Parts: sequence; structure tokens; C-alpha cells
Amino acid sequence: MELLFVIKIGGNIVDDENKLSSFLQSFAQLNGRKILIHGGGKVATKIGDKLGMESKYVDGRRITDAETIDVVTMVYGGLVNKKIVAQLQANGCNAVGVTGADANLIPATKRPVQEIDYGFVGDVESSQLTVGSWQILLDNNLIPVIAPLTHDGKGQILNTNADTMAQEVAKVLSTVYEVQLIYSFEKAGVLLDINDESTLIKQLNWEYYQQLKNPDSPSGVGSKIFAGMIPKLDNAFAALNSGVKKVIIGKAENLLELINGTSGTSIVNE
Amino acid sequence: MELLFVIKIGGNIVDDENKLSSFLQSFAQLNGRKILIHGGGKVATKIGDKLGMESKYVDGRRITDAETIDVVTMVYGGLVNKKIVAQLQANGCNAVGVTGADANLIPATKRPVQEIDYGFVGDVESSQLTVGSWQILLDNNLIPVIAPLTHDGKGQILNTNADTMAQEVAKVLSTVYEVQLIYSFEKAGVLLDINDESTLIKQLNWEYYQQLKNPDSPSGVGSKIFAGMIPKLDNAFAALNSGVKKVIIGKAENLLELINGTSGTSIVNE
Repeated sequence: MELLFVIKIGGNIVDDENKLSSFLQSFAQLNGRKILIHGGGKVATKIGDKLGMESKYVDGRRITDAETIDVVTMVYGGLVNKKIVAQLQANGCNAVGVTGADANLIPATKRPVQEIDYGFVGDVESSQLTVGSWQILLDNNLIPVIAPLTHDGKGQILNTNADTMAQEVAKVLSTVYEVQLIYSFEKAGVLLDINDESTLIKQLNWEYYQQLKNPDSPSGVGSKIFAGMIPKLDNAFAALNSGVKKVIIGKAENLLELINGTSGTSIVNE
Repeated sequence: MELLFVIKIGGNIVDDENKLSSFLQSFAQLNGRKILIHGGGKVATKIGDKLGMESKYVDGRRITDAETIDVVTMVYGGLVNKKIVAQLQANGCNAVGVTGADANLIPATKRPVQEIDYGFVGDVESSQLTVGSWQILLDNNLIPVIAPLTHDGKGQILNTNADTMAQEVAKVLSTVYEVQLIYSFEKAGVLLDINDESTLIKQLNWEYYQQLKNPDSPSGVGSKIFAGMIPKLDNAFAALNSGVKKVIIGKAENLLELINGTSGTSIVNE
């Protein structure tokens, strides 16, 4: 099986011109098949504010109403995505910037309204996610650059979590490629103390993860793992359980070191 | 040679939800290889206004400054392009929405500053335009939907005329496909009197076109051809002279009739 890197880059990096540019140079240098999935960053909120829109939250969760989906479609699918593509092209990387709607790469459904109506938010339809269009791009040396948007197949674009998209894409493509999934962001990896990079966990297995999550764990570290990391780690273990070969979490600026194993946290199954 | 339709849709149609939707249904029904190149429409100006930007003109020509290129990248490359893609997907058409930067589909250079500095406006680099990435998409039944943006290969997105993009793409692809180039917009075709659709010219050859352009022509129609049509017609004849098989100009709502020859103006070489 050919090696494939599925690389998620977080929103904070997308917002930082210098860090993004340095990351994209490394990404361009990486040999072989690769996919970049980018977060949205804060620019959509800034532009929404300038347009006089109010951000709406319910229980601390952002609601994607009709105005907001237009803004994120513009900003994530247009501004952010095309700036990344133009920079990658300048670095000799044959990037194609798309969303999950394009070539039906990532089918989704609008999240059902239960206690909260999240609005135009999409949950990936794993069962309808196929390798066909991905293979056409990847096997022809085109590098997909994916904005955090999907569609419902009925004409509606949906705002979608980039971490989840990365995990779902990595899972389905692990049936045809040897997939390494890399979550890159502003932190050095999974840290015992979020404010201290020297507390980096170099290798994290399921058992240790359960201890970290448990506030009553005898290791006494339970309370220290930061909440924002938990969905990412749940995604990581789910990916490993579904055929993804390796999951690495670490600093975007160290992309090549993350891949050669000298930086970041490796999530392992055993 | 396989048949390929290169279809440009004008900005006025893009701005009209009902007309656009009806056009996209027809486009989806069209069998075989096809490319859609869309204009920008007025929504970029509206959003620019809301963002407090001033439109800048020199000699009646819009200037694309740094703020403007960001807005058109968002609106053309994101909002407009992805709405079209999502609708085409809903109509069973496997659309991939991209710009000329993606897969380096349309290389361009920033227009040199002479009397006027147009800002971030791109002129297509015909000599660097190749069929490679186009063929990967088209021969795998992916339908390119192109926003009127290109790039300079050095990391900069450029605002680019969609008519010219359509002509340049049609020309280069006529080396590998039998290309029909269709300019579709709100009018019935080339009209002798812009306000009277009954004055449609069904067939226009070079000689007749020269008469129409000439105000002193003995046919007496010289002054009637409307100025906005001239660049489109110059493009059309240039395309025919470079290997494009057929050029048709007409109403977007009649797409299928334009193709079967029962509507619009056919531009012919003889």
C-alpha cells in the first residue's frame, strides 16, 4: 500500500501569516501522497462582525444560521482555502482547494435538531464516504486542500468540524492507502500541563489516556489533560481502531519532525 | 475526438437565484464532458459596501486593490462557486468548484502597470496553459466549475475576466477535444437592437461582424451593435481561429436549445 499523509492544520495557525507560511513550505516539501485539511480560524468571526452580524451561541456552542453559513462558505471555502492553494502552488505543490461538497468528497447530513438547533452544521455521513474521487486526485499527484465545509446532497453547504473530517477521511482512505493522520496546531502535542511544553507526552496509549481522563486516577494526572484535547484524542483512537496506521499530534511548525518521529505525541493502539 | 462543452455563465444570471437554478438543472442534464466558468455577479460589490470598502474606478475600469482581491476571492471563489457546486451535486452532476490557481489550471500574470494600475488583475498566460490537469478531471467524469480567479504562480490570487478565461481554456482544450464554447447570459444572443430580441442574429460570420462594427458600413447597422458585446465577439472569433469548433452566444435559460441550435447566435468562421 502507498503511504498517505492526512494532515489537519488548526485554526490558530491559519490566523498567523508567518506560522502558516512556514508550515506550507514544509508541507510542500513532504514527498508522496498527502491531503491538507484546514480549520477556519477567527477571520470568519471578524468579517461577520464587520458585516454587522451577531455571533449566536447556545450553551457555549456556536450556532450556524443562514447568514453565518454564507460567511463561513466565503471565508473558509474562498479566502482561506485559496490563499493556502496559491502559496502551495508557489512552493511547487500542485494543490487543489476544495470542500466536502466538491466531487462529493465528504457527504454529510445537517445535524438533527434535538435539544439545540445548531443550524447549518454537518455531520459526516461515514457510510456514504467513498474513496473514488479521492483516488482520482491523489493518484494523479493532485494535492487536495480541504476547507471545513461539507454538503447535504440537496444543495446545502454545511459547516463541519475539521478534526472530524480529517478522521473520517483518514479512516476511509486507510482501506486503500497506509494512512498517517497528523493533527498539527500551535501546541507541541499532548501536554500534561497545558502551560508547560516540557510536560509533552511522547507516546500515548489507550490505557494511559483513560488514566489521564479520569480525575480520580491513581496516577494523579487526571485533571490536567485539557478539555479541548479530548475530542481530538477520541478521534485519534477511533481512527486507529478503524485502520489508520499512525496518529501524531504536534506543532504545525515542526511538521517534518512530527512525521519523522522527533517531535509531537504519537497515539498508539497497544 | 470527444466532445467538450466549455460554458460561460454571466454575472447577471449568477445574481438571479431562479434563473441560476434553472440554468444549473439544464447544465446537469447535458451529457458528456463539460466545464462551467462563472462570472462574479454583483454580490462582491454588495459585500464590499457592507464591509465599508469604496469601489475604486479609473477611466470607468474597476481597480482591484488588496482589500478588493480578498473580497472577490471570498465571494467568487467561496460563496458563489460553492453554492453552484452544491446545487449541481443535488442535480446529480459531479461538480468540482475551483479557481485557476487550483491544480494550476489557469496560470496568469498580474497585469503590468502602464497608464492605469489595475491592481490584482490577472491576464491569462496562454503559453503556460496546459491540458494535463484538465484532462485528469474531465476524463474521470469530474465537472470543473471555475470561478473568475487565477494566480501568478508566486502566491498571489488575481481577479480575471471570465469571458477571457473561457476562451483561453476552450482554445487549449481544442487540441485534445472537439470544443463547443458557449457564452450564456441574460440576452437571447447578438442583437441588432439591444432592446429588441426579435433582432437576434442567428448566424454571424467575420465579414458581417466587420460590417456591424463599422459605423459607416453600407448595411447601416454599424452603430447598433452594443459595445459590451464587442470583446465577447472578438474572443469568439479568436477562439474559432484557434481550433474551437463552434461558438454560441445566447440566453442561459435556453442552454439546451443553444446547444441543439434552436436558440442563440452561432458565430461561424466562413
